Amino acid sequence: MAVYLDNNATTALGEKVLEAMLPYMGQVTGNPSSVHRFGRLQKDAIEQARESVARLAGARAEQVVFTSGGTESNNLLLNGFSRKNKEARIAVSAVEHMSLLEPAQHLLPAADIIPVDANGCVNVAQLEQVVSEQTSLVSVMSANNETGVIQDLTPLIEFAVQRGCFFHTDASQAAGKIALNFVDSGVHAMTISAHKLYGPVGVGALILDKRLPMTKIQFGGSQEKNLRAGTENVPAIVGFGRAAELALAELQSTATHVRDLRDALEAGLKNFSSISIFAERAERLPNTVQFGIEGFDGETMLMQLDRKAIAVSSGSACTSGKTEPSHVLKAMKVADALANSAIRVSFGKNNTMSDVEKLLAALTDIIEINQQSSVMMAATV
Amino acid sequence: MAVYLDNNATTALGEKVLEAMLPYMGQVTGNPSSVHRFGRLQKDAIEQARESVARLAGARAEQVVFTSGGTESNNLLLNGFSRKNKEARIAVSAVEHMSLLEPAQHLLPAADIIPVDANGCVNVAQLEQVVSEQTSLVSVMSANNETGVIQDLTPLIEFAVQRGCFFHTDASQAAGKIALNFVDSGVHAMTISAHKLYGPVGVGALILDKRLPMTKIQFGGSQEKNLRAGTENVPAIVGFGRAAELALAELQSTATHVRDLRDALEAGLKNFSSISIFAERAERLPNTVQFGIEGFDGETMLMQLDRKAIAVSSGSACTSGKTEPSHVLKAMKVADALANSAIRVSFGKNNTMSDVEKLLAALTDIIEINQQSSVMMAATV
Repeated sequence: MAVYLDNNATTALGEKVLEAMLPYMGQVTGNPSSVHRFGRLQKDAIEQARESVARLAGARAEQVVFTSGGTESNNLLLNGFSRKNKEARIAVSAVEHMSLLEPAQHLLPAADIIPVDANGCVNVAQLEQVVSEQTSLVSVMSANNETGVIQDLTPLIEFAVQRGCFFHTDASQAAGKIALNFVDSGVHAMTISAHKLYGPVGVGALILDKRLPMTKIQFGGSQEKNLRAGTENVPAIVGFGRAAELALAELQSTATHVRDLRDALEAGLKNFSSISIFAERAERLPNTVQFGIEGFDGETMLMQLDRKAIAVSSGSACTSGKTEPSHVLKAMKVADALANSAIRVSFGKNNTMSDVEKLLAALTDIIEINQQSSVMMAATV
Repeated sequence: MAVYLDNNATTALGEKVLEAMLPYMGQVTGNPSSVHRFGRLQKDAIEQARESVARLAGARAEQVVFTSGGTESNNLLLNGFSRKNKEARIAVSAVEHMSLLEPAQHLLPAADIIPVDANGCVNVAQLEQVVSEQTSLVSVMSANNETGVIQDLTPLIEFAVQRGCFFHTDASQAAGKIALNFVDSGVHAMTISAHKLYGPVGVGALILDKRLPMTKIQFGGSQEKNLRAGTENVPAIVGFGRAAELALAELQSTATHVRDLRDALEAGLKNFSSISIFAERAERLPNTVQFGIEGFDGETMLMQLDRKAIAVSSGSACTSGKTEPSHVLKAMKVADALANSAIRVSFGKNNTMSDVEKLLAALTDIIEINQQSSVMMAATV
C-alpha cells in the first residue's frame, strides 16, 4: 500500500461526505435557479450547506459565497475588490499562495508586498512598512501551505482597521486544522477550499463582510447573491457542507492525531545530520512539517520516495515541477541550496504511525545510498 | 412520480457517468499537479477525459481547456480575448445566453449586438450590418436554450473569416443533441457544459484554436496549459469525459427518442386555441419546444404545472424569477404579452410518451379552469 503524506495538496474525500453527495448525483436533478420543485430541492440543499460552512468559519450563512475553489475565491476577492475600488492599493504578504500573489501582481499593479521574518511570520512593524494612505485592502493568510506557519492575525487586523483598510485572510490551509472565527476576528473576507478538509474538489467559499465593497467578476446570472454567475455545483456544495460539519466536530481529535504523527516524524528527522526544520520555532499547523537536508535536491528526493511508494511534496502542488526554490522559503531568506532541498510532509486523519516509520526508513535508505555513492565518487576522483 | 421536462436547464447525471466518477471520489486521492504517483494517476485521468470531450466536439485533445462550466467558459473567452486585444470590438448575437451577453456588455463596452430574424436566426446580411473594420471576434451560439433554434453557422463563419475575425460558438445546448465539428467547421472557440448532457455540474470546456489570442483570467497556477489556474476537478472532468463518450455513441438514438416526444407534444398543443410555437418553422434541437398561449402568464402556468408535479421552464433557468419577457423572444420581436406567456419544454433521454400525455392533460385542466373563471368573472361584471 502506497503511503499518502501530501494532505496539504489535497485530501481523500470522506466516506460520510460522499454519502451526503450521492443523493444529488442521481436520477433526481434540477437547476437551483429553476422555480419548480426540482429546482427548489437543490436550492434548499445549497442553503443548508451554507449554514454548515458558515459554522466552520465562525461566520453567518449569508456571508458565504460559494465558488469553484480557493483559487477562484482569491481571484474573486482581489479582482472584484479592485473593480469596485479603482484607486485601491493592496498589501499582501510575501508568503501567500500563488492564487493570491499572482492575481495581486497581474490584476493590480498597485500591489505592495509585506515582508516576513525568518519564520515566515508577518508582524505589525512589517505591515507598517508597506501600508500607505492609499492602501485599502490587506491580505495575510491564516496558515502557510508549505511550512504550516500560523500567522498571529489579531494585531495585524487591528492595525489594518485603524488605518482604514479592509482585511482578507486565505484560510484554505487553516480550515479544518485550527479554529476559525470570521465574525469575532474582525476580518472582512476569508477564503476556504473544500478539498483541503476531506470535501470534494471543485468547490470553495469566499466569506464576505457586506461592508467590503465587491462586485462579481464572472457574469451571466445572479447566483450567489449576484456575486458569482454560473449554475451552482450542488453535489459539491452539499459535500462541502458535510465536510465542514465533520471538520468542526473532529477539529480537536484530528489535530491531536496528526500532531502525534508530526512530532514523531520530527523526533526521527533529528537523527539525520544537516537537517533543518523550517520555521521550527514558530506556531505551526499540527499536521505540517517542511524540512531540508543540505546537499540533497528536494525534487530528486521526492521522486526517490515516490519509487518507494511514499508521496510527499517539495512545496506547493500548484507550483510543483518548477525548478526555482519556493517563494515562501525565499521570503524567509533561506539559502537557495537549502531551500532547494525542501520536502513537505502533511499528515491527514487517515495516516498512522506506521506511515511515519515507513517514511523514516525510506529517508534513511535514500540518505545512506547517497552517502555511499558520494564516498564512492570521492574514492574514484 | 413528478415529471421532469426541463432538460435544457440541467440533466440527471447518467448512471454510467457516476460509475466512472466514483473511483476518483474515494480513499485514493492526489492533486494532479503533484509529481508523485497519486498525482500522476489523476493527471492521466484528466488527459483521457480530454480525448473523449475532444471527440464529441470534433476537436483535438490539446484544444480542450477544462473550466468550472459553460458560464466560466464564456467569460474566459470574452475576458481572456479582450485582455489580449485591448482595441478589439466583438459582435455577439442578440439571442446569446446571458453568460455571453453579460460579460460582453460588462467587460467590453466595445460589444456590438447582431440582430436576428423572427425565428431568432442570424444571417450574413445581419452580421454584415454589425461587423466593422474594428471587429475582431464574432460569437453566435450553435443552438438556442429557449427556442432550440439551430443557427446555420457555415456562412457566418465564412463571412467572419473573410473579414479577418475570429469566431466563437456557444454549443452548451447543442452538445449531445446535434453533431459538432470544431475543426472542420472552422470556428476558433467553442463552449460546452457537462451538466447539459448527463454529465456532472461544475465542469465545462472552452475549446480553443491556438491561433486565437487568449490569456487566462484566473491566476495562481499553470493548470490547463496555463489558461485556467486552480486545482482540477478530477471526478467531474472524468464524468464529463464519460458523458461525452455516451452522448456521442447515443447521439442518433437520443435525438430520435426526444424528437418523437417533442412532435407528439406539438401535435397535442395544436388542439389548444391561441397557441404559438416559437420559431416553429426554423430548424430546432430535437428535444425543445417553446410555446405561448395568449392570455396566460408563463410564470403562473409554470407554478400551476409544478403543483401538478410537472417541471417545465418559462425560459432560461439562469434568468428565471425575473418578470421581464425573455430577451430571446424580444429579439425575435414577439409581442410582450405573448412572450410573457412562454413555456419551454425540453425533453431528455429519461422521458417517456406518458410524460407527454401527463403534460397535455395538465395543460388542458389549467386552460379549462382558467376559461371557466374568465367566464365567471365576465358573468359577475
